[in-house]
Amino acid sequence: MREVRLIPLPAIGVVGEDDDLVDLLLGSLEVAGLRLEHRDLVIVTSKVVSKSEGRVVSFDGSERNKDELIERESRRVLRRRGPLRITETHHGFVNANAGIDLSNTAEGTAVLLPKDPDRSARRIRADIRRRRGIEVAVIVTDTFGRVWRNGVTDVAIGSAGLKPVLDLRGTSDATGRTLEVTEVAIADEVAGAANLVLGKAEGTPFAVIRGLDDSYFGEGSVSEDLIRPPSGDLFR
Amino acid sequence: MREVRLIPLPAIGVVGEDDDLVDLLLGSLEVAGLRLEHRDLVIVTSKVVSKSEGRVVSFDGSERNKDELIERESRRVLRRRGPLRITETHHGFVNANAGIDLSNTAEGTAVLLPKDPDRSARRIRADIRRRRGIEVAVIVTDTFGRVWRNGVTDVAIGSAGLKPVLDLRGTSDATGRTLEVTEVAIADEVAGAANLVLGKAEGTPFAVIRGLDDSYFGEGSVSEDLIRPPSGDLFR
Repeated sequence: MREVRLIPLPAIGVVGEDDDLVDLLLGSLEVAGLRLEHRDLVIVTSKVVSKSEGRVVSFDGSERNKDELIERESRRVLRRRGPLRITETHHGFVNANAGIDLSNTAEGTAVLLPKDPDRSARRIRADIRRRRGIEVAVIVTDTFGRVWRNGVTDVAIGSAGLKPVLDLRGTSDATGRTLEVTEVAIADEVAGAANLVLGKAEGTPFAVIRGLDDSYFGEGSVSEDLIRPPSGDLFR
Repeated sequence: MREVRLIPLPAIGVVGEDDDLVDLLLGSLEVAGLRLEHRDLVIVTSKVVSKSEGRVVSFDGSERNKDELIERESRRVLRRRGPLRITETHHGFVNANAGIDLSNTAEGTAVLLPKDPDRSARRIRADIRRRRGIEVAVIVTDTFGRVWRNGVTDVAIGSAGLKPVLDLRGTSDATGRTLEVTEVAIADEVAGAANLVLGKAEGTPFAVIRGLDDSYFGEGSVSEDLIRPPSGDLFR
């Protein structure tokens, strides 16, 4: 029986365009006295990814400007209620207001989601491999609302080196009856798990998850494995 | 910065009606050489709760019998596709086939969800307090599918001693603009986190999560805090 550790890293300063996230990550690890190990999973929250990739736009705070931004970032709006829009983004995510961060941003700005979060995750992973010779997995997370249940949870929007969806329990049914669904969205479970330590830690966009089963590591991406096409969806 | 540990407990035998789950839990802890501590969170998967509460019914394997069971356990069926029913259970959960386990059960039987999983969690918590003098939180978990995203995740269906939904990041917005949604469904995040260690561990219904922030502990229940009433839902 192997236990898993959720380790938040120390806070870093404000991230700006062209800041090197792997520099910041390695600095934060050094402050923590922690060394990355083979098959660690590195969690990076989307906001610092967006900022380092220049996904910051001007925003005058008006409803009209907000709707313009949402429209630009979405394929379509699925529902409206008051100031809330439930959108399908160009990535295929269904979320609130196209995932645009309109608050807790610098005056006069809004922060958009990364353009291709799987690519962001792959690039961070490749940089860690190049600079430390270590194979880790990287998940980029964002906070989404859900249907049917109150509250938000963190989910994966980008993945590299982890199988986002995994058959955890095997598919054989000894009694020959209806199979249970066994494709487990482990990328979303690790994202939510990391939020348990990141949510309370101001200014910390990084966590390390250590001890995950070897079978969790491998190829895959959020866009190909985790996003359900509209045609396969009973509620859209 | 405090790290959180996800600790799976050793496997236990097949659970039957009137088995004492806290006996089994304490036995499993002893095998692991682990002692419960104040503010541990104990995760219990729903199937053993159901079995110990006698929620096992006869099932002949036919579609007709399956539909009868689903109808009995549901308020209504929201969608149908092939053998799949998306249901709203009497608890208010939206899930597949009313959460009935039709496979990996003893020949000729199906396992229903616990009747009142919050009460089950409260009883387990009270028994641990009585027998060990320790205040833990208890979450009963089950595996649910989602909309818009592939794969299943474990979620909380019963809770005692943990605040199921928590304002993690504070509500103040320094810039005076739109507030982000900050009510975080930590009960679902801990359920998914536990599945990362339980999913690979055959025959293990118990995990301990250690190191959660003190602010996570307190009153609340899944039925009152986590289930969104149909009237508040944009997709039902």
